[in-house]
Amino acid sequence: MKRFFILSVVLTLAFFSSCVDNRPPETVGAVDPLPSWNSGKNKEEIVRYVELVTDTASNDFIPITHRIAVFDNDGTLWSEQPLYFQLIFVVDRVKQMSKDHPEWKQEEPFKTILEQGLKGLLTVGKQGIGEALLATHTGMSVSDFQNMAKQWADTAKNPMKHVLYTGLVYQPMLELMDYLRQNKFKIYIVSGGSVEFMRPIISNLYGIPSEQIIGTTFKTEYEYNNGHPVIMRIPEIEFNNDKEGKPVNIQKIIGKKPIFAAGNSDGDLAMLQWTASNRYKSLKLYVHHTDSVREWAYDRNSHIGKLDKGLDQALADGWHVVDMKNDWKNIFPFEKKKN
Amino acid sequence: MKRFFILSVVLTLAFFSSCVDNRPPETVGAVDPLPSWNSGKNKEEIVRYVELVTDTASNDFIPITHRIAVFDNDGTLWSEQPLYFQLIFVVDRVKQMSKDHPEWKQEEPFKTILEQGLKGLLTVGKQGIGEALLATHTGMSVSDFQNMAKQWADTAKNPMKHVLYTGLVYQPMLELMDYLRQNKFKIYIVSGGSVEFMRPIISNLYGIPSEQIIGTTFKTEYEYNNGHPVIMRIPEIEFNNDKEGKPVNIQKIIGKKPIFAAGNSDGDLAMLQWTASNRYKSLKLYVHHTDSVREWAYDRNSHIGKLDKGLDQALADGWHVVDMKNDWKNIFPFEKKKN
Repeated sequence: MKRFFILSVVLTLAFFSSCVDNRPPETVGAVDPLPSWNSGKNKEEIVRYVELVTDTASNDFIPITHRIAVFDNDGTLWSEQPLYFQLIFVVDRVKQMSKDHPEWKQEEPFKTILEQGLKGLLTVGKQGIGEALLATHTGMSVSDFQNMAKQWADTAKNPMKHVLYTGLVYQPMLELMDYLRQNKFKIYIVSGGSVEFMRPIISNLYGIPSEQIIGTTFKTEYEYNNGHPVIMRIPEIEFNNDKEGKPVNIQKIIGKKPIFAAGNSDGDLAMLQWTASNRYKSLKLYVHHTDSVREWAYDRNSHIGKLDKGLDQALADGWHVVDMKNDWKNIFPFEKKKN
Repeated sequence: MKRFFILSVVLTLAFFSSCVDNRPPETVGAVDPLPSWNSGKNKEEIVRYVELVTDTASNDFIPITHRIAVFDNDGTLWSEQPLYFQLIFVVDRVKQMSKDHPEWKQEEPFKTILEQGLKGLLTVGKQGIGEALLATHTGMSVSDFQNMAKQWADTAKNPMKHVLYTGLVYQPMLELMDYLRQNKFKIYIVSGGSVEFMRPIISNLYGIPSEQIIGTTFKTEYEYNNGHPVIMRIPEIEFNNDKEGKPVNIQKIIGKKPIFAAGNSDGDLAMLQWTASNRYKSLKLYVHHTDSVREWAYDRNSHIGKLDKGLDQALADGWHVVDMKNDWKNIFPFEKKKN
């Protein structure tokens, strides 16, 4: 009873102090599994959910084999401003490849991208972006493409934060994934990014094996190549892993409905709805970008990571909306080191 | 030294007695991991391979995360005669659905299938089989289709062996998969069968979770359905997981090259070639159907599970060709129970 009393006091305090920025660290149980999360409804309910579904004595117990958790990547696990990581790669690749393509100086969409960089890419429209994607992402073997992506990511810096992109992962989400893994959840990344672009970059970053990374695919072809077989990337988008494509791919590749889903935009809405329909108790979570100082603040009217219909449904259906500014003590790992 | 001496005597005996059918059980080490396999080159080399790549002191040690094993299904893990399991389902479904489709009595390919059953299906050609596949496999939700497949498989009997199809799994291959699992291999089924047809039937049979079953896919669509979302199967083949499609899908879904591959036909050749190109030490295995009494005997000229080019490459490159008649003590689990 004493523990429940303390918990309810903590919860009440957390509720009434949600506008205060720097609060003392609280612990849940002996060791706080989510030290970068401020106390509050979201943190408490995530922990309560995990404790409930992993408790064999609970009516809501879920067998390990059904503990599937799906996470969007851009904007959910790391920053997606000023532009999705992969599109920055497109711009850098166009510049690099232009040495072998002098004709691009006169040809759209390359001309605009070469002249105006990131800003240019945003003006060439969906078709222009598509053409630039195909030109930069296909025509080589999968392993050559992965090496290229990895090398680039090792040095690519965010032009607004002036740190490596890979340094802009969200510390609280890394802790959440660790916590779920400790509780035998199997974590999948389900992102609109190209799967072979993500794998060499995020697999080590998040501790997620390549077979648990699901993304957009380009057509590929097997070539025997006289006993040195390769899989070549063909200039055609095969499957767009966004919006309704996410639950479709989750079923196709995993074959199980998730019990836990995290996203940050309308592109994740179908995945969260699909998760909400699980016969097992499920948890749906939106990361809401509310911190214009430490990260960025945007939602309904953003051209990147727009969260509009999803926010309406989350509020109506009682899904968890994580308020980055107030729910997260630290956002990036480098902030944690400063503390 | 004494152990080596005994082993070499056993090996020599096994070599010279390969034409004898009933030999006394031998053991490898303390407990024989493959009791339904007769001693001989294949059994010994499989065990030696597994011991080598899991031995941290060996130069050929392979980290757990790279121990990916891929198995074809039809003809590799269970019998595929007189016709692939899934095509028998097509015939039964056409008969069942014909009550609601009186027009099929006059329409090909349904007319021939209704009149001549399995034999009829073999005469309607690729296009006819394709039409029958779409008619019987799509137009419903994934979960409805899975229930349908499961119910059917629970009673469907092989017309030549008069036992349940699911009873025609190969006991030696079940043991091989168990042995690999014990040694932390992650086993994937990579089959030409429809992934959603296989999952409800073979997942429990082999102890392989749905996310480790890769197969042919039909197009699907997500429908929100007023808060009761479903994924509907659309009458269009999306990806044919056969031949070159196998390595393509292995890369797309797993993102790692296998170290162990087992197949039984030319449809598996690209998968075995791909595995052979692994920088880690790999093992490639063909199940060769050589037992016309206990199972079936067929290879180069068969219309089902043709093994021709694959056999040539296996013999030329020193892959393992498992001789069902001589390498397997028992073929089916029900034989084992009789012993």
